[in-house]
Amino acid sequence: MRMYDLIEKKKNGFPLSTDEIQWMINGYTKEQIPDYQMSAMLMAICFQGMNEQETLDLTLAMRDSGEVLDLSAVHGIKVDKHSTGGVGDKTTLVLTPIVAALGVPVAKMSGRGLGHTGGTIDKLECFTGFRTDISRKQFFENVNAIGIAVAGQTASLAPADKKLYALRDVTATVAQMSLIASSIMSKKLASGSDAIVLDVKTGNGAFMQKKEDAVRLAETMVKIGTMAGKKMAALVTDMSQPLGNMVGNSLEVIEAIEALRGNGSKDLMDDVYALGAQMLLLAGCAGNEKEAYDSMQSVVKDKRALDKFAEMVEAQGGDKRQVYDTDLLAKAKLKLPVNAKEDGYISSMDTADIGIACMTLGGGRETKESAIDLSVGIELKKKVGDQVKRGEVLAYLYANDEKKAETARDIVANAYHYGASEVMKPQTIHAVITADGHLGKR
Amino acid sequence: MRMYDLIEKKKNGFPLSTDEIQWMINGYTKEQIPDYQMSAMLMAICFQGMNEQETLDLTLAMRDSGEVLDLSAVHGIKVDKHSTGGVGDKTTLVLTPIVAALGVPVAKMSGRGLGHTGGTIDKLECFTGFRTDISRKQFFENVNAIGIAVAGQTASLAPADKKLYALRDVTATVAQMSLIASSIMSKKLASGSDAIVLDVKTGNGAFMQKKEDAVRLAETMVKIGTMAGKKMAALVTDMSQPLGNMVGNSLEVIEAIEALRGNGSKDLMDDVYALGAQMLLLAGCAGNEKEAYDSMQSVVKDKRALDKFAEMVEAQGGDKRQVYDTDLLAKAKLKLPVNAKEDGYISSMDTADIGIACMTLGGGRETKESAIDLSVGIELKKKVGDQVKRGEVLAYLYANDEKKAETARDIVANAYHYGASEVMKPQTIHAVITADGHLGKR
Repeated sequence: MRMYDLIEKKKNGFPLSTDEIQWMINGYTKEQIPDYQMSAMLMAICFQGMNEQETLDLTLAMRDSGEVLDLSAVHGIKVDKHSTGGVGDKTTLVLTPIVAALGVPVAKMSGRGLGHTGGTIDKLECFTGFRTDISRKQFFENVNAIGIAVAGQTASLAPADKKLYALRDVTATVAQMSLIASSIMSKKLASGSDAIVLDVKTGNGAFMQKKEDAVRLAETMVKIGTMAGKKMAALVTDMSQPLGNMVGNSLEVIEAIEALRGNGSKDLMDDVYALGAQMLLLAGCAGNEKEAYDSMQSVVKDKRALDKFAEMVEAQGGDKRQVYDTDLLAKAKLKLPVNAKEDGYISSMDTADIGIACMTLGGGRETKESAIDLSVGIELKKKVGDQVKRGEVLAYLYANDEKKAETARDIVANAYHYGASEVMKPQTIHAVITADGHLGKR
Repeated sequence: MRMYDLIEKKKNGFPLSTDEIQWMINGYTKEQIPDYQMSAMLMAICFQGMNEQETLDLTLAMRDSGEVLDLSAVHGIKVDKHSTGGVGDKTTLVLTPIVAALGVPVAKMSGRGLGHTGGTIDKLECFTGFRTDISRKQFFENVNAIGIAVAGQTASLAPADKKLYALRDVTATVAQMSLIASSIMSKKLASGSDAIVLDVKTGNGAFMQKKEDAVRLAETMVKIGTMAGKKMAALVTDMSQPLGNMVGNSLEVIEAIEALRGNGSKDLMDDVYALGAQMLLLAGCAGNEKEAYDSMQSVVKDKRALDKFAEMVEAQGGDKRQVYDTDLLAKAKLKLPVNAKEDGYISSMDTADIGIACMTLGGGRETKESAIDLSVGIELKKKVGDQVKRGEVLAYLYANDEKKAETARDIVANAYHYGASEVMKPQTIHAVITADGHLGKR
């Protein structure tokens, strides 16, 4: 087989065979196929696409390029959850203790934030002493003992995806449906769970800006997962404004803890419960949606979910007291208001810019190597649909540097857009996609 | 400027600016832009194309990536000639002494053969002692003294094209009109002539298999050359069968010498005279086509062209006696017939396969580093339109190895296709394209 012939085949619009894709990914992982041939292939894929079978083959080839985790040491039906990323998305922090409290074993690998989106691993590190680099053995022990563990992604999972993603990132070949789907799913399939629930974000703060693209991505991933033998469900959820009211690592932890105390904002809880219901259903821990919602609400009400969160923090070396008293978490020195420039209704928000403002404050990474300030961020007092008067507080900045705060204040102020007439608040759940082809719209 | 942004721009179908193309080619030549980004760009260009201005900009940027020859030391209007390559194309060997004998200074840089196509430089090296690596000074002196010199291409011309072509060759991005046109024209513009006549081959032995593609390529190159200030003309000529009757280095030299003696086959002489007429017209050495044809025929008739060829061979260290007695050239040991498998008319030939058969005999290069046997080749006794009887000789193989000859015999025999009814011989000249937009069809 020659890579040249495969490039030409794809360039001419023909599908690649299972053998060809396996040979290509294997050769690329072993550095037998050079980057310059692979980038030509990636660009050809951007133009010619990949069919369902090719996308599955690519996903499986990337999964098999490294270690495939064996979670059989963990009892029960393991359900993984993945979000395509957004601004203020602290869902994992709220959701996992809830489902863990209800008997779903949570053995979760999470990532760090990059660009304008945050990452669960950074957020958990707000707890003094919290370790995400726990050993494999410790990870399994924690899941079996308390039902939940969250660790950083290991480099041994899907190394082909890692290498391919780095190449896509510098050759303008990221935005292709099959490449995105196979990248996400190869890692998810390698992490060894029995079921996977996907949260595909859509809107101006998400990677998939258009809803139809998000739905297509969700459907593609559900199909791949199903074909690979996993139980699957996906939600397409709103990212036309930040999720909840807090953006920034420790601020989002505080908001998550408030949510576990029963004080979560409607959009955050809509997302949490909708994802949680799918997880409970796939894990066989609820018979139907109503049952799932009832049980989730009850573990929030009686603080069992909050206690589960505290147990997890403690089991991974973190300071559990910070869960029950969030004043003990790191605080930014400055709290500065951002004021409304006009009277009117907030008609839309430049969501990614809110993430960028947080990054400007020092709370996000521009490159994978950047250090971040966990204490800074933004508290949104107004969101889309809210009525405001000129001068009213739109948001508070939590900052440690006045100069950075000034830049961030402009970004946040300009991220708000006003209209004269009343505006509907965006719905949180746009679609639910399950393996049996059901596509519910809420 | 970032290469990433340029790739994305082209991927999305937008034209690149002059500055962007210059920056890109400059950066690539200096190895500041990696191959993997350039190959993604090349693939994006394959899908989105380049407009006229971009193609010109790319050509000029590649021309300026290295030395641009100054031919002012050569007197008169310098006319260069370039063929896109084919099987049995010995036109340069016949044409250049004819126009040199008529006062057109010929300062020609030629290439070596690769794959199924031959190269002028290899053919000239059939003369014992002939040197194509003559110094710049010697080159100019020869042109001024005897009106003709043919040297190998120097690496200093258009190095960006060299680097880019090598990358295209391994990433399936060769076959794109603007990339082909700019590759050829950057070298031609760098070699410093005042006028350029192009011979764009079309048919199953040529790079451009379809006539419309060949015409478009010819038009594109004429436009680029004109915009770059050169006098231009292009012919689109037939490569649906080998040109003339000989394929192989020394065999083609013998055929070229026979043509200079007035015994050239019709198709070869049609090509030679049509190209020569354009060269004479652009050089101002003929007032019109008829005058050009008359004068060319007269220097063939009175052997002035043959003598000019002999002068050139001698001036470059070659054995001039071999021009006048071709029996002195290297001979293959074996001469073996290839017989017709059927009765009928030759309806078509797999032209590239005849070139491949010659390569199989040892007369062509599979890679740039291959050594070649100059004495081997194929003499075609039958071509398209000829009537044959089963068992009749279609061709003779000139070989030095029986095993190779056997393989070549099968290839040649299978390259002939038969029909029951009479077949027209293909016309040699399909179109003439001049800078004033005239597109003549013969």
